[in-house]
Amino acid sequence: MRKFNFSAGPCTLPLEVLQEAQAEFVDFNGTGMSLIEMSHRSSTYDAVHMEAMALARSVFGAPDDFSVLFLGGGATLQFAMIPMNVLRPGQRGAYVVSGEWSSKALDDGSHHGDLYAAWDGKSVDYKRMPTTDEIEIGPNTRYLHVTSNETIGGIRFNDFPLVDVPLIGDMSSDYMSRSIPWERFDLVYGGAQKNLGPAGVDITFVRNSVLEETNQDLGAYLRYDIHAAKNSMYNTPPVFPIYMVGKVLAWMEAQGGLPVIESLAAQKSSLVYEAIDASDGFYFSPVDPASRSHMNVVFRLPSEALDGEFLAEAGRRNMSGLKGYRTAGGVRASLYNAMPVEGVQALVELMADFQSANA
Amino acid sequence: MRKFNFSAGPCTLPLEVLQEAQAEFVDFNGTGMSLIEMSHRSSTYDAVHMEAMALARSVFGAPDDFSVLFLGGGATLQFAMIPMNVLRPGQRGAYVVSGEWSSKALDDGSHHGDLYAAWDGKSVDYKRMPTTDEIEIGPNTRYLHVTSNETIGGIRFNDFPLVDVPLIGDMSSDYMSRSIPWERFDLVYGGAQKNLGPAGVDITFVRNSVLEETNQDLGAYLRYDIHAAKNSMYNTPPVFPIYMVGKVLAWMEAQGGLPVIESLAAQKSSLVYEAIDASDGFYFSPVDPASRSHMNVVFRLPSEALDGEFLAEAGRRNMSGLKGYRTAGGVRASLYNAMPVEGVQALVELMADFQSANA
Repeated sequence: MRKFNFSAGPCTLPLEVLQEAQAEFVDFNGTGMSLIEMSHRSSTYDAVHMEAMALARSVFGAPDDFSVLFLGGGATLQFAMIPMNVLRPGQRGAYVVSGEWSSKALDDGSHHGDLYAAWDGKSVDYKRMPTTDEIEIGPNTRYLHVTSNETIGGIRFNDFPLVDVPLIGDMSSDYMSRSIPWERFDLVYGGAQKNLGPAGVDITFVRNSVLEETNQDLGAYLRYDIHAAKNSMYNTPPVFPIYMVGKVLAWMEAQGGLPVIESLAAQKSSLVYEAIDASDGFYFSPVDPASRSHMNVVFRLPSEALDGEFLAEAGRRNMSGLKGYRTAGGVRASLYNAMPVEGVQALVELMADFQSANA
Repeated sequence: MRKFNFSAGPCTLPLEVLQEAQAEFVDFNGTGMSLIEMSHRSSTYDAVHMEAMALARSVFGAPDDFSVLFLGGGATLQFAMIPMNVLRPGQRGAYVVSGEWSSKALDDGSHHGDLYAAWDGKSVDYKRMPTTDEIEIGPNTRYLHVTSNETIGGIRFNDFPLVDVPLIGDMSSDYMSRSIPWERFDLVYGGAQKNLGPAGVDITFVRNSVLEETNQDLGAYLRYDIHAAKNSMYNTPPVFPIYMVGKVLAWMEAQGGLPVIESLAAQKSSLVYEAIDASDGFYFSPVDPASRSHMNVVFRLPSEALDGEFLAEAGRRNMSGLKGYRTAGGVRASLYNAMPVEGVQALVELMADFQSANA
């Protein structure tokens, strides 16, 4: 029996996409072999690859002057590649530190460029994102890096900062769940394994004018300009993850595309936040309401013992992946794009029943 | 109808492995979800991951003092990571340039360390590997990098050089088809997509004493020591490729392991070389017999027109992927581990029939 899978990532994918991939796994479209056995230079794989790339552009609504890259190493490799590629001598990168992921982006990138924290949420216990006027951009700053959603803290930028430098955004955990103000970004990136497919591929969108000025004194895999010029086939790409991303994007398009998905994400998360707010404090969200994530709803119960009982009852009701991050405790419900509304309704029902039984 | 797939990579995989993966793709072992939907921190995925890692160690016969890493970015990212991690100030890396791949390893790595060519096969038209006494190791050399098999040229080291510095080996195209003299290597690496599974994961074996001295002034993804300490789960690993590699390794173990596979590789390639040698020059191999690859058998026909007719007849006989590399022309038969002997026999039969019809 299929579970409602609230895992923070890798995470639930559309059942029909999985079934389609299963059906064509051993013999792809009558070619006499699996897609994963084909040369990446074959016309069959080329069509799959280019279709996934075209869908990434169209379903995300990326402007023509952005290139789409499919890269290995996850968002974590991007933490290093961004300053390596983008910063020129004398330039600095500014980072909003809003939790664990942005902190890693800054720490990792600091080995490869002159970076600094333009805001650090430590003083507010990482319970909210900054307002624009709290962000301090110093001289010679090339970009401001933001993590659009923090999966562990459960916070997101409802509005991206309005600053005088281009933005670079890690959108790993809310990719394709929100529209992107592309005119303010030079680069957005994210691992596929939350909203877009299986683990093993990062999708980076980079403005073409940026590519004209990137650092070329790097090994080929580390150069955005080479990946862009070769449509991410400079070397053998991660075939299966890219193929699955293409299928998930096609599914998203069939659902109605970004406007529908964005609206559903708001609705699904609202159902849980309303249940928290209506619980008279039985369920407690540490997050500032202005920064509530649409993807990762974090809450606590009156005691750790009740946390445990809640999770056990969720398991009996066919729900999984609700345990909070190890350092945060409590409950985390990740509501990525492929989580059906029925899953969220089942969670909200559990919350009501559990409170009645334990209040 | 399943094809005999002679592609140089990605390439043929064992049919039973594909069928097993297909059967469990949508609901993995009754968990109610696909393996690719699970948290990489789940006990189910952890067991799959650690089993693949244990099999990599046992089936390759790697000594206990080596760590096994599963990395994204393919061998191409390793070209940069090796000098980044291994070279300390004042040290140099020596490279045997034996064709396209070793040349890329040297060019890419040169952006990240002081490297030089210790031998270049240009003067012999890259038709053979060097003997040990042709390799010139200069002062302050930390390692000698070798490409054990060149897929395009179709040459391999039958014996690895005996030099006074540790070897580092790119074994992408003959991984798990030959035994490795581990005592002479500090590091071996290779993409999985030829002998071991689908594209999307590189397997690097690195000596633990090397890890104690690697450069730590790098972003986390670029650090071997971090991947080793975290069993390649520092960040979300490429789940599906790793799972498939585990299955292919288990299949190899069931076949009898490395001794059987190594012997089969020699037999399969011999069948084709014998057909070439017996053809009175109708089929011509440009490769020095002492350096003949066991994985990629490269040969030409008397004319380009005949090359084309040969490939067309191969297609009619249910064989694919035999076209030579675009800059090399002719025919290239890649005989990776999952190519059944029947496939090689079909090729040899085609060679005889075609020669009879066209000599």
